[in-house]
Amino acid sequence: MKLATLPDGTPDGRLHLVSRDLARSAPAQGALTLQALLADWDGLAPVLARQAEPLEAGGGAPFDPATAMAPLPRAWQWLDASAFDSHGALMQKVFGLDPNPPGRPLMYQGLSDRFLGPAEDVPLPSEADGIDFEGEFGVICDTVPMGATAAEARAHIRLVVQINDWSLRSLAPIEMKTGFGWIQAKPACSMAPVAVTPDELGGAWRDARVDLPLHVAWNGSRFGAAEGYPMRYGFDALLAHAAYSRALVAGTVLGSGTVSNEDYRTVGSSCIAERRAIEMLEHGAAQTGYMRFGDRVRMECRLRDGTPLFGAIDQRVIPAARRPA
Amino acid sequence: MKLATLPDGTPDGRLHLVSRDLARSAPAQGALTLQALLADWDGLAPVLARQAEPLEAGGGAPFDPATAMAPLPRAWQWLDASAFDSHGALMQKVFGLDPNPPGRPLMYQGLSDRFLGPAEDVPLPSEADGIDFEGEFGVICDTVPMGATAAEARAHIRLVVQINDWSLRSLAPIEMKTGFGWIQAKPACSMAPVAVTPDELGGAWRDARVDLPLHVAWNGSRFGAAEGYPMRYGFDALLAHAAYSRALVAGTVLGSGTVSNEDYRTVGSSCIAERRAIEMLEHGAAQTGYMRFGDRVRMECRLRDGTPLFGAIDQRVIPAARRPA
Repeated sequence: MKLATLPDGTPDGRLHLVSRDLARSAPAQGALTLQALLADWDGLAPVLARQAEPLEAGGGAPFDPATAMAPLPRAWQWLDASAFDSHGALMQKVFGLDPNPPGRPLMYQGLSDRFLGPAEDVPLPSEADGIDFEGEFGVICDTVPMGATAAEARAHIRLVVQINDWSLRSLAPIEMKTGFGWIQAKPACSMAPVAVTPDELGGAWRDARVDLPLHVAWNGSRFGAAEGYPMRYGFDALLAHAAYSRALVAGTVLGSGTVSNEDYRTVGSSCIAERRAIEMLEHGAAQTGYMRFGDRVRMECRLRDGTPLFGAIDQRVIPAARRPA
Repeated sequence: MKLATLPDGTPDGRLHLVSRDLARSAPAQGALTLQALLADWDGLAPVLARQAEPLEAGGGAPFDPATAMAPLPRAWQWLDASAFDSHGALMQKVFGLDPNPPGRPLMYQGLSDRFLGPAEDVPLPSEADGIDFEGEFGVICDTVPMGATAAEARAHIRLVVQINDWSLRSLAPIEMKTGFGWIQAKPACSMAPVAVTPDELGGAWRDARVDLPLHVAWNGSRFGAAEGYPMRYGFDALLAHAAYSRALVAGTVLGSGTVSNEDYRTVGSSCIAERRAIEMLEHGAAQTGYMRFGDRVRMECRLRDGTPLFGAIDQRVIPAARRPA
């Protein structure tokens, strides 16, 4: 099942079913919003799956992914891991960070009251903050009880999504040094237009990981196509880590962290900071600057046969308007 | 105006108006939930203030604060600062942490999908995690635009609340060392039963700070009565810090961090970790252990003339039930 949320003037938008080829859509009956579906997944999902069938035969209306909101436009909880060792190792080398504590995933809690839609402009305060993208995969779960194991948590992974975790790199190390995590360095994230059930990935949903490449282009130039599989921890283990001392609320979004591979020289990167780290290692200094206002970044992941999956994120960074309070 | 939320079977509960002496309450008309009120504060608050008047003349029904949920039982955003220098300085000395970056408040984003009610049992996984309380004050704002100044943000402080930020001290330094902030070390917080508009504090709402003591008792013994005024940054400046690269959603809860004073030898502390730090400085070793299952902590702040304000938090820590997922 593929799901999108179209704008209807409310913060949560209106849930729609989407055809496999992302060409057709129809409003979901029985669940007005994705949050409502997640609150009663077992009861509602089978009903919606049946409603989606006519879309494959040309039913519904044309779907334009660029008009969609994030599939979950706001969430009660956004937890973001950093599960790709090659990314962590590069950052540690370049910034002189301590190695990760062994056996414990890295994870922070971020802004969840707003996920930007896939084609929305991204307003940010200043180019001087080091504006960067981070291409990620993510999952959305229904309720995970406190203390759940990875195997138990896996059964609660209901949807897979694709995320851009916007980051302000000049502020990040200052906030990181406090140990408190990020506030200013992590503005609202963006989501690709379509959330999919894991079965839509077929064999590419493997060990609770997305075994597919994430294609990233900056201002139309290829930037990276790193593979999603090489996560140190699967999404199941990441959920279990988070659920140690809290029940995870239905609609929790959990991210993989920047998709990154050991052969970054070949596949490229999913964020500018990583490319700069590679340049510092190879040439002694970073050569690539961060994003400027007006720049665009495009991110898309398809099945290996070309079938569209999440649709594309394609956004432009703009200066935040100074609005009177 | 004083507001509480009573259980009605929904996650957000039912908003009630409460009399000044916390003895009477009546359901709010025109706003079913506190979140709905915060989404249209300017339109709805004057209407509710008029509805509250008969409560002062004995109207409404008896109010039992122990039956209340948190006034905001779930929030889209919970940001917690650490704004008391004396607490920070003690923690830095004892744990060998770096001093705070000058001119920047410390702040993390935490679990907001659930605030425990003032008399609810607190289920936690293990006594070995170093179970601790943190007595705090907090504010709830309506929408603060991205880039708001402290003066602009101050006008959006709609309610003042009292919070217990539960902490697991054995896990906290491990997570802090990553720079990512806390996930496992920060389970759901608790809120005192009544949220109040700043005018209910009279002169004790001063420079966007709560100029009142927070009385903390552990298993019936006085633990601390630190004053809320000596925050390095007022709640207005803390909101502005958070709003640098994000609009703050209506219903954002922002905490002060553990209330702490320079004369901690006289006034005591609002968390066990601080008392242990003092013991380490004075005796070379911590003498006080953390909480055990069955322990209770009580926190209350009243006006200096004894008028009740937020009501009391009075909770027991219990072992989390291991429920199958």
